[in-house]
Amino acid sequence: MTMPTELPTNQWFVIASVDELGDGPLARTVCGENIVLFRDAEGTLAALVDRCPHRNYPLSLGQVVDGQLQCGYHGLTFSSSGTCVWAPNQSRIPSSASVASYPLCQTGPWIWVWIGDPTHPGVAAPPVLPWLSEPGWAVLHGMEPIAARYGLLVDNLLDLSHETFLHAGYIGTREVAATPIETEVDDATGTVRVSRRMAAVECPKFYSETTGMTSPIDRWQDIEYRPICQYVLHSRIAPAGVAPALDGSDPDAAHLKILYAITPSTAGTTLDFWALCRNFSVDDEGVDEAMADMQRTVVLQDVEALAHVERVLGQSDVVTEVSLKIDSGALAARRVIGRQLEAEPSTAK
Amino acid sequence: MTMPTELPTNQWFVIASVDELGDGPLARTVCGENIVLFRDAEGTLAALVDRCPHRNYPLSLGQVVDGQLQCGYHGLTFSSSGTCVWAPNQSRIPSSASVASYPLCQTGPWIWVWIGDPTHPGVAAPPVLPWLSEPGWAVLHGMEPIAARYGLLVDNLLDLSHETFLHAGYIGTREVAATPIETEVDDATGTVRVSRRMAAVECPKFYSETTGMTSPIDRWQDIEYRPICQYVLHSRIAPAGVAPALDGSDPDAAHLKILYAITPSTAGTTLDFWALCRNFSVDDEGVDEAMADMQRTVVLQDVEALAHVERVLGQSDVVTEVSLKIDSGALAARRVIGRQLEAEPSTAK
Amino acid sequence: MTMPTELPTNQWFVIASVDELGDGPLARTVCGENIVLFRDAEGTLAALVDRCPHRNYPLSLGQVVDGQLQCGYHGLTFSSSGTCVWAPNQSRIPSSASVASYPLCQTGPWIWVWIGDPTHPGVAAPPVLPWLSEPGWAVLHGMEPIAARYGLLVDNLLDLSHETFLHAGYIGTREVAATPIETEVDDATGTVRVSRRMAAVECPKFYSETTGMTSPIDRWQDIEYRPICQYVLHSRIAPAGVAPALDGSDPDAAHLKILYAITPSTAGTTLDFWALCRNFSVDDEGVDEAMADMQRTVVLQDVEALAHVERVLGQSDVVTEVSLKIDSGALAARRVIGRQLEAEPSTAK
Repeated sequence: MTMPTELPTNQWFVIASVDELGDGPLARTVCGENIVLFRDAEGTLAALVDRCPHRNYPLSLGQVVDGQLQCGYHGLTFSSSGTCVWAPNQSRIPSSASVASYPLCQTGPWIWVWIGDPTHPGVAAPPVLPWLSEPGWAVLHGMEPIAARYGLLVDNLLDLSHETFLHAGYIGTREVAATPIETEVDDATGTVRVSRRMAAVECPKFYSETTGMTSPIDRWQDIEYRPICQYVLHSRIAPAGVAPALDGSDPDAAHLKILYAITPSTAGTTLDFWALCRNFSVDDEGVDEAMADMQRTVVLQDVEALAHVERVLGQSDVVTEVSLKIDSGALAARRVIGRQLEAEPSTAK
Repeated sequence: MTMPTELPTNQWFVIASVDELGDGPLARTVCGENIVLFRDAEGTLAALVDRCPHRNYPLSLGQVVDGQLQCGYHGLTFSSSGTCVWAPNQSRIPSSASVASYPLCQTGPWIWVWIGDPTHPGVAAPPVLPWLSEPGWAVLHGMEPIAARYGLLVDNLLDLSHETFLHAGYIGTREVAATPIETEVDDATGTVRVSRRMAAVECPKFYSETTGMTSPIDRWQDIEYRPICQYVLHSRIAPAGVAPALDGSDPDAAHLKILYAITPSTAGTTLDFWALCRNFSVDDEGVDEAMADMQRTVVLQDVEALAHVERVLGQSDVVTEVSLKIDSGALAARRVIGRQLEAEPSTAK
Repeated sequence: MTMPTELPTNQWFVIASVDELGDGPLARTVCGENIVLFRDAEGTLAALVDRCPHRNYPLSLGQVVDGQLQCGYHGLTFSSSGTCVWAPNQSRIPSSASVASYPLCQTGPWIWVWIGDPTHPGVAAPPVLPWLSEPGWAVLHGMEPIAARYGLLVDNLLDLSHETFLHAGYIGTREVAATPIETEVDDATGTVRVSRRMAAVECPKFYSETTGMTSPIDRWQDIEYRPICQYVLHSRIAPAGVAPALDGSDPDAAHLKILYAITPSTAGTTLDFWALCRNFSVDDEGVDEAMADMQRTVVLQDVEALAHVERVLGQSDVVTEVSLKIDSGALAARRVIGRQLEAEPSTAK
């Protein structure tokens, strides 16, 4: 696949969720790399280049035999490290018949892959997203592919004023677009924070149907974004005027961590992984169902909108845009990604 | 959209018919420009660039609110002149957030747009096609998009000998291809005229079913073409031997003005607007229905044929062709368009 | 159509089988040339360039009138040699309005076309594949288009070890991939031979259901390939231990000639003609049906696999591959094709 132009790859990207992986191999394209995921005989996850070095058949069309990946064309068989361990009529197998493997890690339901330099120190530091696995949180998750460059999803998620128009009736209310934001960048960690605090506003359907709260509510949207892949929207909903206690306890509020993993796939496509972690009604399947349904609707509204923007951008060699105050978070994110890129040695891929 | 190579744009092109435009916006691509049409609060037509300058969302996916066009992504709102009058969280809106507008005019059911220089004197001279709006004429109209460059529709309509083969059974008879044509060019107005006068020939189904005339008939085809967009076929059908009177009156003949508006859309697509204006059975809905049905069939035969030719042309960088006497009108039309192009200042679009 | 890069065309390629050609014209693209096939008034086959020289309409969309091919757009009519014999309103037809014709020949059900230099001595030497027409052989045949460059089908057919994996259950057994091959090249005739002789092995379903033989069998696969288009797999199946007699008679064995005609169509597509010629149960329609069904399944498995490989190759400008011992036949075939190419004068097409 065509590599997205200038993409910093020395970082973790979500490639799949564990429940997507059955007994056979799974194909995914991340940052332009075709990758096949499978489990070895011990159940350990493995990720290899999804291309048989012999005659270029996708390995993901083969099968897992005794924890090794067998090509479906001529049967070449690969260990979880990518070594070719069998080929037809060949006792001595050339080392050139092996394929590269990728480091993997797991956080809750999400499997992450490392595309860049495997000796980079960041490989030893998996992402920390505690709500995905800690007790006390109910987790819903899913993924939608988007026919748009990843930057359009960054723009989208860093500027939630679009909720009022694109997601009206679900999470958008008049007050979202009407309330100013505060943006700050933590240069040390490369984190962008965008905060919108709404007081005594309308409770949108997404929250009224899942928390039972009614208007007016206080609604806080605190975005914490570590480009490219780690986006957390700390969402706090409380009856109007109810603040957290001085000790941080906040019993009357509902807290929802809205996570997105923004994974560039090809130059013009993106994998939009999402997870909703809530600390209320954690065992309520009705809430599960209502929340997942509405989230899927909202995500598909983004999917459709961003594909339209990608189509427009594809009609011209030059992208022009006019940025407004609401774009301060997205522009900060671009600067962080630009610095990541500068920090990577340019390599001929 | 990719601009068709070398297209003279200082002229009017049909963009839509009035009945296509409802309460919301309408998207059309004319001469490579993506345009959104809508009506302002007074009902006046407006045409803007169909791209929000903020984040490139098509404005045609938004809605018309109080006669202004609201972007469906972040709500930026534009007046009928293209000025951005509202943006989220932004009291002072930069002038760069506005979009260009296009001059429009209307002739009967057809809305025309001016893509080129808006200060050109031609803007003040809308097309004159009286049969579209004058009393005494019944008007049917429609549009089909064609997956072919506009020049193929010019070739098609200027050489009606193809009726015999492509439209046999509807408007084609043996005599159309068998009868010689006369071609002349009026250089002052850039008008191409192609005339075919058939005497005592077969009456094709298209006319027998709508006029009741039977073979033999005199059948005149007098084309009057003002490139690129204005094509009129003056069709006269009369019992064989019946000529117009010296004073021009012609009570025994049926007159049909077959109009085509040839609108280049992208480099490889064309909008084929058609209108049939008749001075007989003007209140007869049965004739309306029969005539519109057959016309649609004929137009779709052209749509299919020209898409095949476009496909063939797309397989090679070099287009070769052999022109015959029947192509004199089409070749004259190309010369007129070539002169239009020379008269336009070359501009970097 | 885009011409496949560097293709030797001074040779015969199968373009169609006789039963594909009815009363009308038939369109096919061979080696990048769009060709129309039809029968003249005497029933003789003719092949012309499938493009009307007048306005580029595909002649294959027209009709055969009195053994001549009439264009469906303006009626230009062509003899079987490509001469334009009629055009509308044109008494003297320019010679530039004629189209080129291609030499044809026929072998059994297959019609072959000569794309290259029509004065080449090879035109006088049609392919010799006696089993297609000699008595004593039952012939089944078909064709599937493949969305892959022709070289991938050469690779596929010259290395039958893939039967074990891609065609398991039909013609593949464990022993095919496990048995070594012998490869030899006859430089004088440009023929590649690959031989695999399996002794006392499993009888696959394809043969058990059509010959009634049961495991163990002796199974011989003797490939004889004359690039690009003539591939014969001499398949011999016999009860284990039964050898042909010294005089060559082999009454207890079943002989099947599995023919493939590999016809490059466009740069990324191939026509995969196949024929099965058997000397057993020649009048048994049950065997016809079972064998044709299984063959179609096997061919479609190749069709799908090669389209996947083509997709992978299309993602990169550089094709890398690792060749093994099993690829000796395919590599020899590439060398033969390379020599054919060197023998052709480079011409600007």
